[in-house]
Formats: sequence, C-alpha cells, structure tokens
Amino acid sequence: MSEVHLARRSRLRDRCAANAVGGSTAVLVSSPANIRYLTGCAPRGAALLLGADGRDTLLTLPDPAAGPQGLPEPADELRALILPGADGDPAVAAAELAANTGSGVLAVEEHHLTVARHRALASVAPRLRLVDLGGAVEQQRLIKDDEEIAALRIAAEITDQALGELLESILVGRTERHLALELERRLIDHGADGPAFPTSVATGRHSGLPAHTPTDRRVEEGDFLSVRLGARYGGYRCQIGRTFVIGTAPADWQVNLYNVVFAAQRAGREALVPGTECRAVDRAARQVLDAAGYGEALGARIGHGVGLEIGEDPRLSPAAMGKLDACVPVTVEPGVHLPGRGGVRIDDTLVVRPPADGGPELLTITTKELLAL
Amino acid sequence: MSEVHLARRSRLRDRCAANAVGGSTAVLVSSPANIRYLTGCAPRGAALLLGADGRDTLLTLPDPAAGPQGLPEPADELRALILPGADGDPAVAAAELAANTGSGVLAVEEHHLTVARHRALASVAPRLRLVDLGGAVEQQRLIKDDEEIAALRIAAEITDQALGELLESILVGRTERHLALELERRLIDHGADGPAFPTSVATGRHSGLPAHTPTDRRVEEGDFLSVRLGARYGGYRCQIGRTFVIGTAPADWQVNLYNVVFAAQRAGREALVPGTECRAVDRAARQVLDAAGYGEALGARIGHGVGLEIGEDPRLSPAAMGKLDACVPVTVEPGVHLPGRGGVRIDDTLVVRPPADGGPELLTITTKELLAL
Repeated sequence: MSEVHLARRSRLRDRCAANAVGGSTAVLVSSPANIRYLTGCAPRGAALLLGADGRDTLLTLPDPAAGPQGLPEPADELRALILPGADGDPAVAAAELAANTGSGVLAVEEHHLTVARHRALASVAPRLRLVDLGGAVEQQRLIKDDEEIAALRIAAEITDQALGELLESILVGRTERHLALELERRLIDHGADGPAFPTSVATGRHSGLPAHTPTDRRVEEGDFLSVRLGARYGGYRCQIGRTFVIGTAPADWQVNLYNVVFAAQRAGREALVPGTECRAVDRAARQVLDAAGYGEALGARIGHGVGLEIGEDPRLSPAAMGKLDACVPVTVEPGVHLPGRGGVRIDDTLVVRPPADGGPELLTITTKELLAL
Repeated sequence: MSEVHLARRSRLRDRCAANAVGGSTAVLVSSPANIRYLTGCAPRGAALLLGADGRDTLLTLPDPAAGPQGLPEPADELRALILPGADGDPAVAAAELAANTGSGVLAVEEHHLTVARHRALASVAPRLRLVDLGGAVEQQRLIKDDEEIAALRIAAEITDQALGELLESILVGRTERHLALELERRLIDHGADGPAFPTSVATGRHSGLPAHTPTDRRVEEGDFLSVRLGARYGGYRCQIGRTFVIGTAPADWQVNLYNVVFAAQRAGREALVPGTECRAVDRAARQVLDAAGYGEALGARIGHGVGLEIGEDPRLSPAAMGKLDACVPVTVEPGVHLPGRGGVRIDDTLVVRPPADGGPELLTITTKELLAL
C-alpha cells in the first residue's frame, strides 16, 4: 500500500523539479484530500513536507487515540513527526523543517492555506521563498488507478443498494428528512464509511433543485420526488441522482419534462470520450435543454470529477479548459426545476473509457426509466 | 429580526472606525458563521461588504432555489447583489465594489481567506490597501444576547431529550454507528435543524476518546459507553457528553475513574465566574486529573465557546489569554482514556453567570450520576 503512495510522492517531486524556480525546492501539502492521496491517511490538521533533501515527513498534532485511524506505519519513505503541543500548526512546523534542511524555496498550496497561516510560515522561516504549488496534486489525482476505480465501483454498488431498498418501501407521508436519514443508514448498513455528501431528498415543489437541504415536507401522491445520495468507501465518493413520480401514473407535463432531462443527460453521457473537451460535455447536455426552452435551468455545470472529494477536477462547465482522459470518473447531472412546481434531476457517476473498450463505464446502474412509486 | 443584525453591523463598523488605519475603511466578511451573525443568513460562498460609503451589501452566487433558504428580504439596510455567473467569487466582487465606492482600505478576514483568493482581490482592486480584520467578528460573537441563549437552551433541551430516549432503549449488541445514527434521527425528531457536529459513540476500549468516529464495534456487557452529541437549532449549537456502564454493576476501576473525571469536570464548572481567566478554568480541572495521576490525559483544553459554531472563542486552555464574561456559553469536557481499556468523558454546555444570579447556568441537564444501563 505504501508503495502506491511513495510512487505518487515521487511523481509529484518530479513534476515540481521540472517546474523548479531555482534553488532547492521543497513542497508543503496541507489540503486533507491531497495528504490522503499522497500518504494513505489524513490526520486532522496535518501537513506533508516533501523536503529538498529527499525526505518526506508527515507532521501532525498529538493524537490521544493513537490507533488505526492515526498515523501511517513508520516507514523509511515517510517519517512521522508529532508536534509537542496541541495548539501548534503543522504547516508552520513544516516550513521550519524545510528551512533547516536546506530548502531555499517552499511550494505551498495557496488555494488552501489561509493568509494568516501563510504569514505564520513566512515569519518562522524568513529566508525561505514561498511559491504557489497550484493544483499540482489535484492534477495528479485526475486519472484514477485500478484500485481507486475499484473503490468507486464498490461505493456505487452500495449507493445503488441503498436507493433500491428505499424504493421498495412506503414513501407517501414520510418527510424529506426522514427519507434522507433512512438512505444514510442504509449506506452504512451496506458497508459505506459514511455518506459521500449530505443526502438530498426533494419532493413536490422542491423536486429537481440541485442542492436541496431536506425539510419536514411530506411526500404526497402526484409529487415528483428527486433524491441525490452517494456512499464513501475507502475514502472514495460517488454520486447518484434519480427522480420518481409518486402515485400510479405521471401527469403529461411530468413525462415531457422527464424525457427532456433524460435526453440531456444521455447526450452528456455520450459525450464522455477521451480527448473530448470538458466544455463539450456541458454543451452537449445544455443544447438539449436549450432546444426545449430550458437553457437557463442548467446552472453552472453539467458535472464534475469525483474521487477523494465529491467535487474535484475536471469541471464540466462552459468555461472549462482541458480535455477528458480515460480513467477519469465524472458525474453527469443535469436537471430542470420549475419554481412552484418541482422538476427532474438525473445524475450518474461514470468512468471515461475509450470507445474501443465499450465507451464510458457506468458505475451507478439504478434504472433511469421513470418509475411511478 | 433585521434590527438585531443591523445593530451588530453598526457595532462592527464602530469598532473598525476606532481602529482605522487611515483612509476610508471598508470591511469584507467572508466566513459563513460571521456572515450569518451579521445578516441572519449565510448563502454558500457569500461575501458581506460594509462599505466606506455606509452601505452594507451581501454578494452571493446565483441560487436556483430562490426561496426561504436564500437571501434576506430586501431592506434598506442591506442590499443584496447576485453575481451573474456561478463561477465568480463574491469576495472578489466585493473588493471591486469597495474600490468603486470610494474605499481606500479594505479589512479582510485573513484567518479565513485563502492566499489565492486574497491575491485575486488584490489584482482586481490594485489601489485598495488590504489589511487584516482579525477576529473582530468572533470577538463580538463572544457574549450572547437573550435570543441567542434562548436558541441554545432549546438546542440543549432537544439534545437531552434525544439522549434520554436512547438510554431507555436496548444498547447491548448494537454498533457505535447505529447508535450514532439513532441519536441523530432523534435530534431531528425533536426539532433540531440537524446535529451540531458528527455524533460520537465510543464503547469498550474506545470509550473516553475525545473525538472518536463511530465504528462497527458492538456494545458489550461491562463496557464503558461514552457518547457526545449536540443539536443545532436556529443555527446555534450545543454539546453534551456522558459516559455510562453497560450491565448491572460497574467494576471498581470504572467507579474510581468516573469519580476522578466527575470531580475534574465539577472543578471546571465551578471555575466559571465572570472575570476569571480562561486558563484558570482549564487549570482547575487539570489539577484534579494531575493529582490522580492523569495529568497527561486531558489534551489541549478543558472546553471552548459555543454558538453559531461548535468550537468558538473563548478557548479554555492553558495558554488562553482573556477572561470570562457573563452570558458567554462554554463547554467543560474533561476526560481520561486508558489505551486498550477505555475511559470516561463528561461534557456540559453552560452559560457563565454572576454568582449573584446563581452561578453558571447549566443547559445540558441529563444526570451526571454514573448510570448502569
């Protein structure tokens, strides 16, 4: 396991050396998901230093529960350094260590560190030149290896199971909140570490909203009911969204709206080809909604990458730079919400694959047929 | 309601004017809890600008669910400005607005803004001088008004009810995770917006840990079982922690350890007097644990403030500067964890009150007597 992490850290070092600004550059990673990606664990408040001397050090706060949740096993490749006091900042200690081990330049994550922490680093190591690491680790995390995709498959399977069980239960009369709690309980029952993000259950005039916090509103006959949930497994997070009709038969407006969103989502899924521009995926879905008169409804983007974070690169949005690669998992999640009436949202997690390999691998396999429950 | 928020913003302006570095100073608040405190709402990614021209503006991202969760009602005292695109940064837009309305200086929350966002502000408004607002809003939030304390009382009542119900149910054989989910469901059943923080349930050798993520470990006869939970109500968060013994009678070591932690927690509670140094509260509890040989066990601090955030000022720690004031709600939460055996943690939320008013007001009233369940 630690070989994987060592290889990732080596790759990061190589990239930074290639971009080095001169002097001996050390790298300070402070964002939790990035630390987890590079070491296999993410103790609270930790900082990872890739030293100019070739040594990697994980600096952490003292942890009374020194156990499996805590530090990685000691290894030659990764040294663990526990701060003496619980009020220190491991990032500041890392900067001090970098300065003391011969670094002239320290690359930091300016999109993560606050101004206050950055000032503290600068003041404890005044001769260290602080530069921006930028999204180097996020970039590395884009393409997932086999183990990462395996974890995502399991997360998706757990998610499908939890959703499937809910659909077999009585829904009318239950509140959005209770259904959301029920879904989260089932995720855990089926082996998830926990939910990948706060579960969204939206019924009636709430349905189709992109990010709806469940309320005490009760499910009623005739409602659209849209749910969005995901499991977290081995740190990896996936996402599914489905919309159902409550009762025996949907109304015409519901069928028509559902078909439009389904077509938009299918267009997005079919655009997932290695080499395609990220913005083209968004455009493919947006065009379908536009043609039906719902162009405004889409929101910022059609989808995003998933992995250790539920929202990561790439962003599938109109302004996105970059292209898709194989082995990049993304969501495709268009929707239309009609204020006062409700709406539809359909959301899958897929892995981009070459057409020769069968096209995108769908992880979330719950049916997208409009079900009347 | 908006009068309260207007008054808070006025008070913040006055404090900043008193500390003004020259030129006309505007204030940019970006931290969500602080925005909520000053406006009554906290849309995702919002930024609040107290302009040098005397106008207050809340800048937000576009929100498809324009509804009760969204913006404050339009009022003369607070202007709402929605960014055109969903990928913008309201803080950057706020800096631009400040520069365009005559500000020479902009005070920002350096402990919240990332370096990257700070650079973006500076580049969009190069003639604006950026200074640090520091913890001015956190400082203002320290002393709670009657409505805030009322919300905390309700949060505590909900928390006590949820915990009380759990104690009447069967515990042996259930996993930490299921008990945690059960507690969170009951919090919501009793009217909470949601949990104040992730619920901790720790049994057997996990018990007594300060921040334990629930696992699949099952409760067994003879275990110490320690739980920590809290409700969020009207945005306000409280916290309770209790430790129980599972079975008919506790072992001697369990009774002895419980008595030590109880005495330490009582010493901490009794130190909550207006004018007392924050570090003295920590010392009072720490001394009791020290005398019993558990001085190392306490961890960073004996407790902390609560309010819109579960961990806010004041910190009751050995290095804490500052003194207690009346109407400041805090936790007192010592514990001892013996690796491999388990331990005890006892945790209350109290409001500091003058002795003439009866001393600290205990919000979390579930018994602290050692119960065998």
